[in-house]
Amino acid sequence: MKLTILIHCPDQSGIISSVTRFIHKKTGNIIYLDQHVDKEAGVFFMRLECEFENGITLSQFKQDFSELVALKYYMQWDAYKDGEKPRMAIFVSKYNHCLYDLLSRFNSGELPIEIPFILSNHPDLEYVAEQFQIPYYHVPISKDKKAEAEEKQLELLEEHQVDFIVLARYMQILSSKVIDVYPHKIINIHHSFLPAFAGAKPYHAAFERGVKIIGATSHYVTAELDAGPIIEQDVTTVSHTHSVKDFIAKGRDLEKIVLARAVQLHVDRKTIVYKNKTVIFS
Amino acid sequence: MKLTILIHCPDQSGIISSVTRFIHKKTGNIIYLDQHVDKEAGVFFMRLECEFENGITLSQFKQDFSELVALKYYMQWDAYKDGEKPRMAIFVSKYNHCLYDLLSRFNSGELPIEIPFILSNHPDLEYVAEQFQIPYYHVPISKDKKAEAEEKQLELLEEHQVDFIVLARYMQILSSKVIDVYPHKIINIHHSFLPAFAGAKPYHAAFERGVKIIGATSHYVTAELDAGPIIEQDVTTVSHTHSVKDFIAKGRDLEKIVLARAVQLHVDRKTIVYKNKTVIFS
Amino acid sequence: MKLTILIHCPDQSGIISSVTRFIHKKTGNIIYLDQHVDKEAGVFFMRLECEFENGITLSQFKQDFSELVALKYYMQWDAYKDGEKPRMAIFVSKYNHCLYDLLSRFNSGELPIEIPFILSNHPDLEYVAEQFQIPYYHVPISKDKKAEAEEKQLELLEEHQVDFIVLARYMQILSSKVIDVYPHKIINIHHSFLPAFAGAKPYHAAFERGVKIIGATSHYVTAELDAGPIIEQDVTTVSHTHSVKDFIAKGRDLEKIVLARAVQLHVDRKTIVYKNKTVIFS
Amino acid sequence: MKLTILIHCPDQSGIISSVTRFIHKKTGNIIYLDQHVDKEAGVFFMRLECEFENGITLSQFKQDFSELVALKYYMQWDAYKDGEKPRMAIFVSKYNHCLYDLLSRFNSGELPIEIPFILSNHPDLEYVAEQFQIPYYHVPISKDKKAEAEEKQLELLEEHQVDFIVLARYMQILSSKVIDVYPHKIINIHHSFLPAFAGAKPYHAAFERGVKIIGATSHYVTAELDAGPIIEQDVTTVSHTHSVKDFIAKGRDLEKIVLARAVQLHVDRKTIVYKNKTVIFS
Repeated sequence: MKLTILIHCPDQSGIISSVTRFIHKKTGNIIYLDQHVDKEAGVFFMRLECEFENGITLSQFKQDFSELVALKYYMQWDAYKDGEKPRMAIFVSKYNHCLYDLLSRFNSGELPIEIPFILSNHPDLEYVAEQFQIPYYHVPISKDKKAEAEEKQLELLEEHQVDFIVLARYMQILSSKVIDVYPHKIINIHHSFLPAFAGAKPYHAAFERGVKIIGATSHYVTAELDAGPIIEQDVTTVSHTHSVKDFIAKGRDLEKIVLARAVQLHVDRKTIVYKNKTVIFS
Repeated sequence: MKLTILIHCPDQSGIISSVTRFIHKKTGNIIYLDQHVDKEAGVFFMRLECEFENGITLSQFKQDFSELVALKYYMQWDAYKDGEKPRMAIFVSKYNHCLYDLLSRFNSGELPIEIPFILSNHPDLEYVAEQFQIPYYHVPISKDKKAEAEEKQLELLEEHQVDFIVLARYMQILSSKVIDVYPHKIINIHHSFLPAFAGAKPYHAAFERGVKIIGATSHYVTAELDAGPIIEQDVTTVSHTHSVKDFIAKGRDLEKIVLARAVQLHVDRKTIVYKNKTVIFS
Repeated sequence: MKLTILIHCPDQSGIISSVTRFIHKKTGNIIYLDQHVDKEAGVFFMRLECEFENGITLSQFKQDFSELVALKYYMQWDAYKDGEKPRMAIFVSKYNHCLYDLLSRFNSGELPIEIPFILSNHPDLEYVAEQFQIPYYHVPISKDKKAEAEEKQLELLEEHQVDFIVLARYMQILSSKVIDVYPHKIINIHHSFLPAFAGAKPYHAAFERGVKIIGATSHYVTAELDAGPIIEQDVTTVSHTHSVKDFIAKGRDLEKIVLARAVQLHVDRKTIVYKNKTVIFS
Repeated sequence: MKLTILIHCPDQSGIISSVTRFIHKKTGNIIYLDQHVDKEAGVFFMRLECEFENGITLSQFKQDFSELVALKYYMQWDAYKDGEKPRMAIFVSKYNHCLYDLLSRFNSGELPIEIPFILSNHPDLEYVAEQFQIPYYHVPISKDKKAEAEEKQLELLEEHQVDFIVLARYMQILSSKVIDVYPHKIINIHHSFLPAFAGAKPYHAAFERGVKIIGATSHYVTAELDAGPIIEQDVTTVSHTHSVKDFIAKGRDLEKIVLARAVQLHVDRKTIVYKNKTVIFS
């Protein structure tokens, strides 16, 4: 059995020693350990990967670790067994570049996940879903029936036992009704270098301001628009020779790569959220 | 005689043809031509470098070009003779990294300029000026005597026939009294990826927001703080492992390189300002 | 009619003036002009985009330009009418990431081309061709029947009137029999930062050498392996924490983006090859 | 007392647990721990920072750690006490940009080192040494007297108790006579993206090849020219518009930044060399 363990707790002396000794005693072999201390906040973070050759089960490990280590240090923690594929729903609107990119990675085996369905407020991208033979749900959003639509979304998410959601250029704002059910489990791609140009039409705003670099930001969705914990960012250069249309074209490549990296980090259990920021393990 | 010519005017058909024919008739040889059209604004921009082997003078060229070409197209334009070194004043406060970088480039002959003086609101960096044997004026700024200090600054700038000013981490805000005398001739370095984190303490704000990339921006100073036309930007990656102090250290390298590039572009006459944006020729 | 014109010829005074005057007289409006002089080699390069509102045809333009301008300056040149889509064949082997990327861009309308067919020495990727409803030819290559396979390739290319070929991780070396028919019309993606790590297994070699940055290079194919004119390169950072497998995974994203950019530049007529190098217009 | 500990040894189960338990028992607090396993080579690497509030001395720590931990795991290791400044000699020839950059960082307090002297095979940069009031030794190198010159170098290095040497664009090849005395303690900056363009005139070679990106590489010096373990690399884009002279100018900025980063990593004890590669801790 191979486990990935994510821990955070108040910082104090002896945590690493306690955790590693526990694993050693269980005859586990640590194959990766990275830790971080936020000195200002006094918080300790750790990510471990370890292998057990004996017959210990995940639930046994969890029970013992909880009693013998976690309680003592007030840890918030979880352990994930290798090979269990998280279930990822994709929400889209009309742009297909992020969707195509995620699905082709999925098809190539790059992403160890299940994709139970794609959901959209428009019918436009159903053909892409068909190309990759994934169910496509068209859930239109109108001003007066948004609540109803979100009910439908939650139903589908629950029915398909979705673990996390990727907004692959989904142009609707989720209400807290959905966000609260999936805390730090909804990944968005925003087409600017946040916190610059939050909100609508960031490429137009970047063009107007005359910036020389544009960016894309993938973050966990929180109640405040485009203000959630940042997972990944990247940028590319632009110049006066580029029109808004060029910004959008250059941005598409950024968006899909940045979103894919964020999804990969999430799937690999390399992210911990704390104080609206992320610790991203390497 | 080698000339660099910068032109902008309302866009219309025939401008390039007219300009190049004029130069050709004057037996000039065009060794560089780049042009740009802002289609939305309907403005044409051009930068030319040309060599004249006959005895034409700059003033003769200017007079003829004005009459025969510029007037017809309502051009705003200027021509600069090669070899004339612009005179650059440096304003600093207490940080020395940008100052050291500019002075060592100057000493190496990288920057074809004169540096008549360094001015500071603090005495701290006089030793650097002495190392490079450049006059250093200490002009303190206090709240109630800011106007007086700016008078002194303007006096020095005029007396030394300064062409443009570089704010090399000068921590005071210039009033329009100074800015208006040097329109698009004051280059600032701001230690963030503008428009994100304008104003004071951008590294602290970037740390607080949990960004994964930090930047630096060099721009022409206008009345509105950190909102002038951007000349050059660059970025570097950061992570949760970096403290604010690390941001500041990484940022120093960005700041000095970005400022130096902006100064080089300005000195090489590769910048045109238009509608609070820049056209940067290659 | 909108034309894109690419020119190179021995450098001399008056070329720009002659060309722009010719277009002006034909009542054409120049909407883009960029030029470059390789001073060492004494060669002049130019790219123009211009619009004609009157009824001039492409053949009429070509005849007049040839007689009145091109001959005088010994120009090698061509003019391309907007809206005519070049026909691009894709060669692949077993990796699908570049193929998926090109096809999804094609499907999104990013690339103004026709794709008459995909060809492979393996049957593996036929399912991708089917997803996008593009003909797929399986032309196996064995050591003793390579000549025969190349005959088949040439037949298909001719039959489908292919304008240029993209090797999207095609793991066979083309012989001069094919290359000579498509000079500077075959675009390859090599998974290293050339000239470092030419040839087979570049990620393994990069890992072995302990580099801190890996790259990808797109170039026109010439007789010498991985030594043709470079169109586009990009890089990404790696560290000791990355295995060869990680290099390969990070490299995939580089490869597909770099190849797509090179294809876009070629399709937009922004490349001129000269002395085994490229001039890439912006 | 604050210690930084660097360890590498054959990989096996229990190492982290043993080390962290030892430190915990000595009432030390681990404030940083990073580890890496090279699975192919079966080697374990670790870097720790820990603080001790009790009166333990460095020599006491070293003796106990050696007996109780290091021996058992066949560790190669060292422990460095905070606040002890390594002594760094700088070798230069005629280019001053790396020298200026290192000295201005030193003057600003960025680099916690001592600089006992600057050595050059030319007298040209003595003025820079004088600006910063550091001793400058001119040790000319002629073909027939190279051995003699190296004797002189070794004498100076020993006399000034130099810990490590930085070749800041020193244009002479060191013989093994010097290298063997300072194994993995001589840091060079090579002005290319190694392994591309090793040896002389890399910018000319890069220009000739028509690359779109140039780089700089800082590495530890070994007997084979430009083939030692790479510490840091970075790159910048170039185009057909850049001449060799432009490559050199753009390269200067790369060289000084990359060299400074490598020196900083070395000074911060963040590098371990193994199998002609480096492990670089974050």
